[in-house]
Amino acid sequence: MGEQRIRRAVSPGSFDPVTSGHVDVLTRAAGLFDELVVAVLHNPDKSGTFSVEERIGFLEEALAAVANVRVVAFGGRLIVDVCRELDAPVIVKGLRSETDYAYELPMAAMNRHLTGVETIFVPGDGALAHVSSSLVRQVASFGGDVTGLVPDPVRDALVARYRQA
Amino acid sequence: MGEQRIRRAVSPGSFDPVTSGHVDVLTRAAGLFDELVVAVLHNPDKSGTFSVEERIGFLEEALAAVANVRVVAFGGRLIVDVCRELDAPVIVKGLRSETDYAYELPMAAMNRHLTGVETIFVPGDGALAHVSSSLVRQVASFGGDVTGLVPDPVRDALVARYRQA
Amino acid sequence: MGEQRIRRAVSPGSFDPVTSGHVDVLTRAAGLFDELVVAVLHNPDKSGTFSVEERIGFLEEALAAVANVRVVAFGGRLIVDVCRELDAPVIVKGLRSETDYAYELPMAAMNRHLTGVETIFVPGDGALAHVSSSLVRQVASFGGDVTGLVPDPVRDALVARYRQA
Amino acid sequence: MGEQRIRRAVSPGSFDPVTSGHVDVLTRAAGLFDELVVAVLHNPDKSGTFSVEERIGFLEEALAAVANVRVVAFGGRLIVDVCRELDAPVIVKGLRSETDYAYELPMAAMNRHLTGVETIFVPGDGALAHVSSSLVRQVASFGGDVTGLVPDPVRDALVARYRQA
Amino acid sequence: MGEQRIRRAVSPGSFDPVTSGHVDVLTRAAGLFDELVVAVLHNPDKSGTFSVEERIGFLEEALAAVANVRVVAFGGRLIVDVCRELDAPVIVKGLRSETDYAYELPMAAMNRHLTGVETIFVPGDGALAHVSSSLVRQVASFGGDVTGLVPDPVRDALVARYRQA
Amino acid sequence: MGEQRIRRAVSPGSFDPVTSGHVDVLTRAAGLFDELVVAVLHNPDKSGTFSVEERIGFLEEALAAVANVRVVAFGGRLIVDVCRELDAPVIVKGLRSETDYAYELPMAAMNRHLTGVETIFVPGDGALAHVSSSLVRQVASFGGDVTGLVPDPVRDALVARYRQA
Repeated sequence: MGEQRIRRAVSPGSFDPVTSGHVDVLTRAAGLFDELVVAVLHNPDKSGTFSVEERIGFLEEALAAVANVRVVAFGGRLIVDVCRELDAPVIVKGLRSETDYAYELPMAAMNRHLTGVETIFVPGDGALAHVSSSLVRQVASFGGDVTGLVPDPVRDALVARYRQA
Repeated sequence: MGEQRIRRAVSPGSFDPVTSGHVDVLTRAAGLFDELVVAVLHNPDKSGTFSVEERIGFLEEALAAVANVRVVAFGGRLIVDVCRELDAPVIVKGLRSETDYAYELPMAAMNRHLTGVETIFVPGDGALAHVSSSLVRQVASFGGDVTGLVPDPVRDALVARYRQA
Repeated sequence: MGEQRIRRAVSPGSFDPVTSGHVDVLTRAAGLFDELVVAVLHNPDKSGTFSVEERIGFLEEALAAVANVRVVAFGGRLIVDVCRELDAPVIVKGLRSETDYAYELPMAAMNRHLTGVETIFVPGDGALAHVSSSLVRQVASFGGDVTGLVPDPVRDALVARYRQA
Repeated sequence: MGEQRIRRAVSPGSFDPVTSGHVDVLTRAAGLFDELVVAVLHNPDKSGTFSVEERIGFLEEALAAVANVRVVAFGGRLIVDVCRELDAPVIVKGLRSETDYAYELPMAAMNRHLTGVETIFVPGDGALAHVSSSLVRQVASFGGDVTGLVPDPVRDALVARYRQA
Repeated sequence: MGEQRIRRAVSPGSFDPVTSGHVDVLTRAAGLFDELVVAVLHNPDKSGTFSVEERIGFLEEALAAVANVRVVAFGGRLIVDVCRELDAPVIVKGLRSETDYAYELPMAAMNRHLTGVETIFVPGDGALAHVSSSLVRQVASFGGDVTGLVPDPVRDALVARYRQA
Repeated sequence: MGEQRIRRAVSPGSFDPVTSGHVDVLTRAAGLFDELVVAVLHNPDKSGTFSVEERIGFLEEALAAVANVRVVAFGGRLIVDVCRELDAPVIVKGLRSETDYAYELPMAAMNRHLTGVETIFVPGDGALAHVSSSLVRQVASFGGDVTGLVPDPVRDALVARYRQA
């Protein structure tokens, strides 16, 4: 106790697009730290459904009410290097399922091996366990209503996107 | 940012006895908060291998070098009530395996349902994934050497305990 | 098509006590068959929190609005023998988690081996994935509020039960 | 009871090609409903090993002895829309493993969210747990004998297909 | 190559009673080594359904056709000490399911930690994945027919045992 | 006993590149057999990070101290055909996680179905559970230090490879 340094965490992901599950976990995770930096992965080899700029915009809008959240892009380097640059000793990941944990665990161990950065896992809300970006995109692409599964602006953008297609 | 309140977390368990895996996770977890309170479950219906007082003693000795850890006993009430009393909005649990996560998840969801307390999961060190209190007790009871799997004073106490038997 | 026989299924369990998760799954399962028989396991070697009669009472009250449900007790014999007697070729089980499935699968295969009875699995509502009879009992025993996790009469009975203790 | 409406279920999949495991599950699933509609997914973006017409042909031949099965193609829309059109309130999926369940669960929850359609899971025969369309294709492509793992006409077609290659 | 030492493995378990699944795995495991020693756990704190002598008798009878199998009892000490005494550097365990693996893994890692003994896992036959000693006992205790799930002499003994009860 | 035939096993994989986890498991597996043949999969449809020749070179160098290991390439045919040609009745696979087991199990059952070849699983060292070829490649491609996760010559080759890119 008595430490005055800022407790900062990083939550990386593709967020293509952000879902209501992401918003829930990020909001709760933000409550655990002084600052939460959401890091949107920019993969130049893979064109996403939305651009990194669009994804950041959706996140900023969805998390506007959470004072201590900042959204940044990253790409072409390791997330642990992002953490070091931001002076954030911990990564936060939401988990939708046991299978998610199995998938994330090796990356958590690798990141700790590389620079000592810790990863903590926050279980998602059970009522949203089925809501992933990929399943939402698939539903929207076939005209399904994704209201409630994503923030409203994301829903509108998905509708517009797949109407064109 | 700018919040000055103390960030406090609770890590509950039986710790009968504390293992090297516990020490690793608790030490790392302590680095994420201003104060970590280790809460040792006292179950009056079940006689443990060590008394709650002994278990607390082992924990305090093993974590002596970690300045911001405190060890308390609890029993006869919900862990979320302990959290409320301590003004700790988050529970920290270490995970040894995917199966651990499946076991802990319902309790995490229940605790959040009851009072809004969050649970975060910290993956244990892979090199210690096989080290549980129960397996250590079993090995020690048959005369196996548990050096390194538990702090040295715990090992000595286990040897003494099972020599009597 | 053109078959006129009654499609009847059996859903066995301890239901000690029935939870909101059970009510959800049983209600939905009832919609899939002409008649759903809920079979409450009576294990004479193990005293439950509630008697089989109480458990049946809670179930009947909770499922009063579902016309095609019947509640019976069974014990001292195989569930497949109950199915045969009731002319029900299928067992329905709700699943709270992947781990539940792993636990139920051998029994399903055994039951099919014994008499050809099928078992079908209905996933529970994600928002209730943490609600098991045992966790509800534990919470109630320490004075936690289980409103919403069980039908109201069950909550009242739990409060009365643990106030005595 | 007393309801006279037809109980109809839909079992979707790629069936590229149908395996003995599929035939087993579909036959058993058909016994649970008045009519089972097997819906073969037509994905125009992905050329399968067999055309949708071929896959339907193999299914119809393999299930010829099951009176209440019908095979249809679907594509470019959600399976829940197929269910609605067919007046089928339930989807049936076979499960080969615990991992299968983890994979299918989010889709089941999504489908229920979208239109209230239920998904029930039928465990596959343990003796056929290793038989998937993709593994069968791979074995056949290297000249392995898949007799018994798929209906004989499928085996013959696979042999012919890969002999050309 | 050129080593002439005997390759010996130990397969420990309760075998209360031996099942057809055990017989399958032990027979296959015996094919991988010069000698397979089946080690029957004798737990003096827990009265089994059959005595250790009975269990050994059933195993010897069931494995009579497998030349290089020997059956021994062990208790009150670690399985790694049994391995050392027998000059067997490897333990063989059958696996019925993914969950079995999760359960066995910590013991395998512990045994390797203690004396360097390796554990190898042999997947059981999928057609027998539901056959465990405990489920067989339960079925038999309620009068279910376990023919084929256990060797015939075991079935007869189970029938006799539960007829008395 | 008294059999003089060579006990030979095959351990197949992509090894693109070999990791410290592979070296650990292969070394231990070699101790269980008279000869261990490491079979490097050559997939002509997919260009690896390293050529099959390079991968074999890295394996031979890393396993130089293990006398009874041989490294071969295979492709365009089933691994069970490789086993038959080499007179090896058993495949050995290392496992990093429960999920690995779920993935490998159908292939093991298929291989046994096809020719009777057995597959045995050897659990990897928990301290290396996060070390997969793909994660190592990813870390190296972003300039992360993979010393200790792969043999030194592999690390040097990865550094050289990604410096060019």
